[in-house]
Amino acid sequence: MNTRKKLTLFNDPIYGFITIPNALVFDLIEHTYFQRLRRITQMGMSYLVFPGAHHTRFHHALGCMHLMQKAVQVLRYKDIVISKEEEEALYVAILLHDIGHGPFSHALEHSLVTGVDHEQISLQFMEALNKNFNERLTLAISIFNDSYPRKFLHQLVSGQLDMDRLDYLKRDSFYTGASEGNINSERLISMLNVANDQLVVESKAIYSVEKFLVARRLMYWSVYLHKTGLAAEQVLIRVLQRAKELIAQGDSLQASEPLMFFLKRESEVFDQTALKHFARLDDHDIIQALKGWCDHSDSILCKLSNMILDRDLPKVKLKNKKPTSAQVDKHKEKVSKALGIPMDQTHYFVFEGQVTNRAYRNDTQNINLLSKNGKLTDVAGASDQLNLKALTREVTKHYLCYPKGKHY
Amino acid sequence: MNTRKKLTLFNDPIYGFITIPNALVFDLIEHTYFQRLRRITQMGMSYLVFPGAHHTRFHHALGCMHLMQKAVQVLRYKDIVISKEEEEALYVAILLHDIGHGPFSHALEHSLVTGVDHEQISLQFMEALNKNFNERLTLAISIFNDSYPRKFLHQLVSGQLDMDRLDYLKRDSFYTGASEGNINSERLISMLNVANDQLVVESKAIYSVEKFLVARRLMYWSVYLHKTGLAAEQVLIRVLQRAKELIAQGDSLQASEPLMFFLKRESEVFDQTALKHFARLDDHDIIQALKGWCDHSDSILCKLSNMILDRDLPKVKLKNKKPTSAQVDKHKEKVSKALGIPMDQTHYFVFEGQVTNRAYRNDTQNINLLSKNGKLTDVAGASDQLNLKALTREVTKHYLCYPKGKHY
Amino acid sequence: MNTRKKLTLFNDPIYGFITIPNALVFDLIEHTYFQRLRRITQMGMSYLVFPGAHHTRFHHALGCMHLMQKAVQVLRYKDIVISKEEEEALYVAILLHDIGHGPFSHALEHSLVTGVDHEQISLQFMEALNKNFNERLTLAISIFNDSYPRKFLHQLVSGQLDMDRLDYLKRDSFYTGASEGNINSERLISMLNVANDQLVVESKAIYSVEKFLVARRLMYWSVYLHKTGLAAEQVLIRVLQRAKELIAQGDSLQASEPLMFFLKRESEVFDQTALKHFARLDDHDIIQALKGWCDHSDSILCKLSNMILDRDLPKVKLKNKKPTSAQVDKHKEKVSKALGIPMDQTHYFVFEGQVTNRAYRNDTQNINLLSKNGKLTDVAGASDQLNLKALTREVTKHYLCYPKGKHY
Amino acid sequence: MNTRKKLTLFNDPIYGFITIPNALVFDLIEHTYFQRLRRITQMGMSYLVFPGAHHTRFHHALGCMHLMQKAVQVLRYKDIVISKEEEEALYVAILLHDIGHGPFSHALEHSLVTGVDHEQISLQFMEALNKNFNERLTLAISIFNDSYPRKFLHQLVSGQLDMDRLDYLKRDSFYTGASEGNINSERLISMLNVANDQLVVESKAIYSVEKFLVARRLMYWSVYLHKTGLAAEQVLIRVLQRAKELIAQGDSLQASEPLMFFLKRESEVFDQTALKHFARLDDHDIIQALKGWCDHSDSILCKLSNMILDRDLPKVKLKNKKPTSAQVDKHKEKVSKALGIPMDQTHYFVFEGQVTNRAYRNDTQNINLLSKNGKLTDVAGASDQLNLKALTREVTKHYLCYPKGKHY
Repeated sequence: MNTRKKLTLFNDPIYGFITIPNALVFDLIEHTYFQRLRRITQMGMSYLVFPGAHHTRFHHALGCMHLMQKAVQVLRYKDIVISKEEEEALYVAILLHDIGHGPFSHALEHSLVTGVDHEQISLQFMEALNKNFNERLTLAISIFNDSYPRKFLHQLVSGQLDMDRLDYLKRDSFYTGASEGNINSERLISMLNVANDQLVVESKAIYSVEKFLVARRLMYWSVYLHKTGLAAEQVLIRVLQRAKELIAQGDSLQASEPLMFFLKRESEVFDQTALKHFARLDDHDIIQALKGWCDHSDSILCKLSNMILDRDLPKVKLKNKKPTSAQVDKHKEKVSKALGIPMDQTHYFVFEGQVTNRAYRNDTQNINLLSKNGKLTDVAGASDQLNLKALTREVTKHYLCYPKGKHY
Repeated sequence: MNTRKKLTLFNDPIYGFITIPNALVFDLIEHTYFQRLRRITQMGMSYLVFPGAHHTRFHHALGCMHLMQKAVQVLRYKDIVISKEEEEALYVAILLHDIGHGPFSHALEHSLVTGVDHEQISLQFMEALNKNFNERLTLAISIFNDSYPRKFLHQLVSGQLDMDRLDYLKRDSFYTGASEGNINSERLISMLNVANDQLVVESKAIYSVEKFLVARRLMYWSVYLHKTGLAAEQVLIRVLQRAKELIAQGDSLQASEPLMFFLKRESEVFDQTALKHFARLDDHDIIQALKGWCDHSDSILCKLSNMILDRDLPKVKLKNKKPTSAQVDKHKEKVSKALGIPMDQTHYFVFEGQVTNRAYRNDTQNINLLSKNGKLTDVAGASDQLNLKALTREVTKHYLCYPKGKHY
Repeated sequence: MNTRKKLTLFNDPIYGFITIPNALVFDLIEHTYFQRLRRITQMGMSYLVFPGAHHTRFHHALGCMHLMQKAVQVLRYKDIVISKEEEEALYVAILLHDIGHGPFSHALEHSLVTGVDHEQISLQFMEALNKNFNERLTLAISIFNDSYPRKFLHQLVSGQLDMDRLDYLKRDSFYTGASEGNINSERLISMLNVANDQLVVESKAIYSVEKFLVARRLMYWSVYLHKTGLAAEQVLIRVLQRAKELIAQGDSLQASEPLMFFLKRESEVFDQTALKHFARLDDHDIIQALKGWCDHSDSILCKLSNMILDRDLPKVKLKNKKPTSAQVDKHKEKVSKALGIPMDQTHYFVFEGQVTNRAYRNDTQNINLLSKNGKLTDVAGASDQLNLKALTREVTKHYLCYPKGKHY
Repeated sequence: MNTRKKLTLFNDPIYGFITIPNALVFDLIEHTYFQRLRRITQMGMSYLVFPGAHHTRFHHALGCMHLMQKAVQVLRYKDIVISKEEEEALYVAILLHDIGHGPFSHALEHSLVTGVDHEQISLQFMEALNKNFNERLTLAISIFNDSYPRKFLHQLVSGQLDMDRLDYLKRDSFYTGASEGNINSERLISMLNVANDQLVVESKAIYSVEKFLVARRLMYWSVYLHKTGLAAEQVLIRVLQRAKELIAQGDSLQASEPLMFFLKRESEVFDQTALKHFARLDDHDIIQALKGWCDHSDSILCKLSNMILDRDLPKVKLKNKKPTSAQVDKHKEKVSKALGIPMDQTHYFVFEGQVTNRAYRNDTQNINLLSKNGKLTDVAGASDQLNLKALTREVTKHYLCYPKGKHY
């Protein structure tokens, strides 16, 4: 290992300094695939609601890796054996766990590229990097895709208490100013342990876990599913959908080469060609396209693009009940008349949908508390009140978006 | 009003600056009754668990008054009429709401002075001050004791969302380092309103209220009812109980004059004489007495005193179930033998009791959300999950304290 | 005024909430000219050194306006008369003071657009907006360009203690994590006053002013003039210079329409046409162009573009002395040989220059302390030590950039 | 080593958690000598100016030990050999470095106990503990009194960049709310190194060191030497002086046994008897005595005691020049007349003195920067401006205290 590189530091307003643990991690960070994450915003369209939320996937990935270093230190202190190779693999796996994110992170997942989710693309990136780096990522990949026998290593990368969540709740809270998510990540990590090859927390951590689950729930409703951010995301999806439609019908349209590749693409197979184009795609391709489309002759494309660029977003109603067809149609008719577009195109401006929030999944994965006598208990059962039990229930809300009054 | 005084500022690490709004408030702060609060610790024995928790009732009272200024500003902005006189009365009432606290705040309430609680003593102090200040506190007193017709004014001083709670959760969190209580007080205040003469919050505040209630619940279990702090408090109560007993049986004992007054007193009537002595009593009388009692010939008094001074606290078990008599007796027998004291005096070292925590009382008082159309809904009902409903249930835990191994 | 709009809030992690004071300010914020600032990063290329530094001119402008509201409140409290019209004008002037910034703020000033600085462009934007808003910006403009008789109003917008500096030091410190700049803006504002129509600070603020000036000095060396950020900025300037050169010699080059306008432009007159194109130009035009140029046949353009995108920056030496020609030439020769380019093009990769830092200018503008007896003293003279006097001296450093070893 | 003890944690609002590194440290913390520090306030009378400043020597000592753990980790990482024994000795030495502080820390040093300073008393405590702990403190003592050959170990405990300063500036800043002292202790520690057996900092730390020295300077003027705190301290000194005088002339006076010992004592030899009494002395003895003396027949003692208890402090003028005898006498005459006391006793109420502040001593000890090529340079010489040089000059101010108007 190169000692010079070991001392490389990143300034981070949250943790102070982030240290690069070794030369492999250093070289991965320097790779063009990873540098691309500097141009992928962490929170999609949320910056239109929280003007401070311009932090990137690049920064989040470094933050997760920092927390992973803490976790390894804590677990080893508690006599959990983690070999040097496993340690390196953990850093690599968490560093690259989001490398498959596309423009605006989750906002365009499943719309710009269909048929694969970002984890699968991350895996493809890792495999491509593995070739470049003489197979040194093999162990990291097996931890990432959960094929490695020691399960708790995967849970540190992806689970109910993984380094990903411990970083993003804190980081998103910091940059948005929404204090709901300001969890004490380092405290939680200090109470991690391993029992029966599962990642668990010590039982004295029960209130910290409760705080973490409530923070997560509140961040979803207040920030990630904030109705205005939601509306912006839905509009962005519709801009691209319209662009695809126009291209499909033969209209000419400006777009960067990698963006055009995905706008034209019909296949759902994410092959090497797709990966090559995807590796060149970031937020700028989208925003720059929108800026060009503002002058396009198609008034729908033009109007939708402007809605994002000038933050002229639709009105949103977020309710417990699904809106009736009558309610939706009323708005569609107004839009059809006001904008002079046929009813079957009003769905670009009037649309409904639903969002769900479930703070704690105790069915598939759960958080176990480890008592001093070695007993494991699910945290929802261990709590002295039913409030955590209540958090296992999924909550669904329905939204209805339609243009603001001044557009009629 | 005296302009010079208006500009007086207190440095506060939490709010930056605290401004004294007028000369009356300034003069009350300078009064010897109020200065006494500099010598009353806010969190009783908690500093034995959280070494930073040495902040005082004096500081808390100033903090509450600061928040009250914000609240008045917010409500007036929303066109709630608050007269100049009511404004001054609010500041006076909140400033003095805790002036009746005795040594170590809640820790010795109901044991050193019996028959009255601190609110009643606060009222007596206010009435005494009212005489000194030419009846300028009359309105403040009527708001404090809830005899003033406009009920929301009282609720700002004492209620489920009063300035008291909004300050202490944040302040205690700050000084202990227990981040669970770090609520966003100013944000909550900005969403207060008044409907039907009740203090309410705007419905968009629902997640902030949820965070506040959960923070309160977690602060109780993690901090206020922390088992070691609990044990220390119970030992302190027993030191004074033992001192009273010894005095009652004619033993000689060192104590300051005001402390001796209360150790000897049998009456439960809190008259002017009691007030006069109480006004001279603070934490130092207790600690100084304990330091003297360390050499006392009564080994029980001596031992208990040392337990506080050297933080040599009992072991505590905190469980959902009440310990059985057999469990208690087993410890008592061990203590009786080890310390050579009769069984009927082992209760000084082995004792049990219970604590309760209820994050949200929706029976007597509740927090109502005000929707845009003017409708009021209880926050527990308005929440999209049952977790707030769960917080209305009272939780009881049972503790059992007994000496550490090395004492046997 | 529209009451509904008055309550509009922005979340800000630094100040908590930013309130929109009136409908004019609200409408200006909604204007496409102002929304453009969402796409202009505040700190140029600094995010390549401080990964958190992605905050924008949009956010900074809101922050300044928030501080201006505090300043107006403080000064009025001290009986400085500020009319309603002047108040509104102050908010408008500070909101728009940076609206003339182009891509990457200062990084490309004087290179992409020559002949004007960003203040002059800001003025042109304000004048354009003034037409749209029925001349309601006239007073704001006269405060901004210092033609309004009451000079302290201009100093609040632009001076040694203006709201601009009080926001950017704090904000840049927050987002970079460089704690050197974490000044106490609100405390400084609370000590502002006006004497002889000059903005002054009360004499008790002397140590706060000292802290502010030292913070500014340290932020320059540690952050704004950080050698790696400096190198990145210089590379970016050279990419555009190379692009202009290629265009001038007739090569074909991809660029968005507004960017192409400025790459082709030779005139230094910033007319309406220039303004129209400038209003559509932001960071994305630059980054997107760089991404396209990575494949260009010109190896210099291609290489320089990649250096930014993949953060493959040159080595930088920052010294007190100017490097000798021999030193520079040695690197140029290496580059010429390694990259196979003629000596007269090596200046794209090997270059020198200088930066200066002067924490406190007491010649043109100065900070005066107001003593209780009304006397004014320059802060450098009033300090009990010569350290502030020392800060009035300008410090110059010389940098030399050349490619890293692996490129030879 | 006892594993159970190793995991003991203290909550600290500044560093999160403080870990007890081993059983010896644990046992020392539990010792009655160390527990006494819970009753010694860190900042003397400063809480009368900064109401949050009630933190204790106990907490500060833990904080220093926490930073020492970081320092050991950093230096070992840089291949500086520190043996297990030296490591333990460093923790013990820093933990106990202030154990010799008496009531109100520096406020009463040299007045209650004369002839020795707190470091010498600390040494006596350490020697007494060394006997109790089977000579395990011998190495710690030799590091503390600088008789151990490896000098940098002593400098970590006591020097211009020791763990003491790195903790107290940050901690005092935190509890007072005076942001001037909020240094980045962990960053500074990360840049420590050892060269020629001297503790040095890496040259890239130059701006952090500058910030540290300026922070120290500003904390002295704004906080430690705040004129009101200064006045309170001087009054406290005079209360005890008056008490000694009355005792010397045979008056009867209430005081706890250990306090009385020192009030009566004339010897300057600090022997075992003195240590025994000193070990039982803390803030409470003083405050409790003052409370008793409020009713004393000597009006001077009584008045001075009240001035502290009710924070009825004198007026203070802090100037660059020494007040003239005429100025002092004028106030003395007023006091003599108003209070009816002879001129030769007015010095209790009217007094002058001086304070000095020197941010950086480069004569006896200095801070050296270590450049990459191994060269050492004094930080004041290395700075690009003369401002650090200016900080090496000692600044003296003169104060004059006299009663407030209402007392005449």
